[in-house]
Amino acid sequence: MSVSQELNPTARYLMGPGPSDVHPRVLKAMATPLIGHLDPQFIEIMDGVMEMLRLLFRTKNQLTFAVSATGSAGMETCLVNVLEPGDEALVCVHGVFGNRMSDIVERCGAKVIRVDAPWGQPIDPHAVKKALSVSKPKLVAIVHAETSTGVHQPLQEISNIAHENGALFLVDAVTSLGGADVRADDWGIDIIYSGTQKCISAPPGLSPVSFSPRAVQVMEKRKTKVQSWYLDLSMVRKYWSGAKRAYHHTAPISMIYALYEALRLIFEEGLENRFERHRRNHVLLRDGLEEMGFEYIPAPEYRLPMLNAVKIPSGFNDAEIRDRLLNEYNIEIGGGLGDFAGKAWRIGIMGHSCTENHVHMLLAALRKIMNAG
Amino acid sequence: MSVSQELNPTARYLMGPGPSDVHPRVLKAMATPLIGHLDPQFIEIMDGVMEMLRLLFRTKNQLTFAVSATGSAGMETCLVNVLEPGDEALVCVHGVFGNRMSDIVERCGAKVIRVDAPWGQPIDPHAVKKALSVSKPKLVAIVHAETSTGVHQPLQEISNIAHENGALFLVDAVTSLGGADVRADDWGIDIIYSGTQKCISAPPGLSPVSFSPRAVQVMEKRKTKVQSWYLDLSMVRKYWSGAKRAYHHTAPISMIYALYEALRLIFEEGLENRFERHRRNHVLLRDGLEEMGFEYIPAPEYRLPMLNAVKIPSGFNDAEIRDRLLNEYNIEIGGGLGDFAGKAWRIGIMGHSCTENHVHMLLAALRKIMNAG
Repeated sequence: MSVSQELNPTARYLMGPGPSDVHPRVLKAMATPLIGHLDPQFIEIMDGVMEMLRLLFRTKNQLTFAVSATGSAGMETCLVNVLEPGDEALVCVHGVFGNRMSDIVERCGAKVIRVDAPWGQPIDPHAVKKALSVSKPKLVAIVHAETSTGVHQPLQEISNIAHENGALFLVDAVTSLGGADVRADDWGIDIIYSGTQKCISAPPGLSPVSFSPRAVQVMEKRKTKVQSWYLDLSMVRKYWSGAKRAYHHTAPISMIYALYEALRLIFEEGLENRFERHRRNHVLLRDGLEEMGFEYIPAPEYRLPMLNAVKIPSGFNDAEIRDRLLNEYNIEIGGGLGDFAGKAWRIGIMGHSCTENHVHMLLAALRKIMNAG
Repeated sequence: MSVSQELNPTARYLMGPGPSDVHPRVLKAMATPLIGHLDPQFIEIMDGVMEMLRLLFRTKNQLTFAVSATGSAGMETCLVNVLEPGDEALVCVHGVFGNRMSDIVERCGAKVIRVDAPWGQPIDPHAVKKALSVSKPKLVAIVHAETSTGVHQPLQEISNIAHENGALFLVDAVTSLGGADVRADDWGIDIIYSGTQKCISAPPGLSPVSFSPRAVQVMEKRKTKVQSWYLDLSMVRKYWSGAKRAYHHTAPISMIYALYEALRLIFEEGLENRFERHRRNHVLLRDGLEEMGFEYIPAPEYRLPMLNAVKIPSGFNDAEIRDRLLNEYNIEIGGGLGDFAGKAWRIGIMGHSCTENHVHMLLAALRKIMNAG
């Protein structure tokens, strides 16, 4: 019987749209021997994760935990627990992930009201206001950091508009959380989800989420069962935070260890220091890229620090250069998605991948490849 | 800002219904630095996982891979991709996990036809035959190793009955796969799922699944979208096995590393040797338990080797003894679920937890606690 070869991947520098590099302490946490998922010591670790996630989301929401699957399952969790067949949901679409939300809303049997912006631009609050003048959706959903376009979406004004119209405000913070300010309570966010593999710098596999008391009320008033058993929070929340923890599914223990350690690293650094580090390295990267003739897709005031979406200068081949970066320099950057496939790159400086050294390495390698090209 | 304490769980011996102990080589694999989820080297690792899972399920099914979430999400994947609103599904229920399948079937908008057996007994093929004489379900679903009762369900006869009636045959092999024989092709299984944290002895977080060409055909003929975006195989399969791998979600890379290494260990040992080890240690455990006055719940011919469900002798307190085992001996065993809560124990000898030493330790600790009690 054949046995596959030894696991021996090449060491890479991860500068794409995620996963990002993972700190050795997080890798070490992953190698911690397992304990049971209902062991009192594991319950304490879950409590620590919940407490640190509240600090990271800047929220007092009791229902703050990590869904046992990747960020897209977090998106699905946030939508399927709130929406019921026949509901309406306003979804802002300015890239791949707004589109994905629309798709999930429809799978809930709910009606999508779309507010679009051209790829590379943020959503205009006036367009949301206008759409709400002729509809009464249960929620307004928007992506804070559109990983497909590099756009940093301002949230406060749209949050106000949503609440004035009696809608819950739902935010995708997959790429922003841990790398830029996310203030769930101050910004009136009712439902928010993220992923572990971007600025939190843990491996992919969990999705941090948080629900306001108002969102929890809406879930408790449902008339129908949530369509997903695995993501049904009426059961999952009893496992994460019931007075007596009730078995639902077996938590991905090693992933929870990793998230726990990654969150500790975040608070040892301090949120403000961490955000400043992302801004500082963004400026360093931006100056280097612009010097080489790259243009950013978003306007200066809407650029994400951690995800730099730039047009590939004419005369250069997307796949060829990315292959050379990977094979000759072990640096991974991301290609364009959707409208931007073949035309743009997405350069991530997220979490543990956000260092001066990473930026220097990438710029130097790009200069060599592109000048020689 | 407070920072949670260092991650420092006590070393445990995991002899409950899962997770099981994890081999140091699997822990080491988890600590491997990450590469991108579309890196050509990662695609090779995915291919290796698919190839080894085919050997483990004993199948030629092309669509054999690991769902990016725990075993219950595997169960959901198998049902939601096949069932559509208005369909009928026959679900055999002889414990917690048959019940869970029924629940998911209903969430698909499909009608459940239940065939029940008393907890602790297997499903009677005649009952399935009788139910199929007055119904025409799309699938017949059954649990191979009922973790809540310790019953080892024979499958061949029920498989034949399902196929004679034009139904797909769906099997839950969460607890059996890797510890007892599972022959997807020989037994005519169309859809099968498992978990990583039982006899495969990787951490929880992935669910190996396999679909026969006939099951794939049924999925391809769907008239409605799968209700779950995250688990929709029409997209997921393009990521795992498309000619050009298409981004769907970000795979849980470190978990895939762990599964890869756990599968290598299985084939280094050899399937037959591994099954024999589970049988041998089951006999050792059984003899010791019976000597102490324990009675097994299932009849001798229906006992699982890896999951030993026994009645707690009268005069002994469930929680107190399990607490002492955990706190004084660092041994975890499982309490009863559902009908058996407080009345039974579930003792797992799964994968890396299935050694003579584990059995000796547990028996000796139990003797001390129960004789002193």
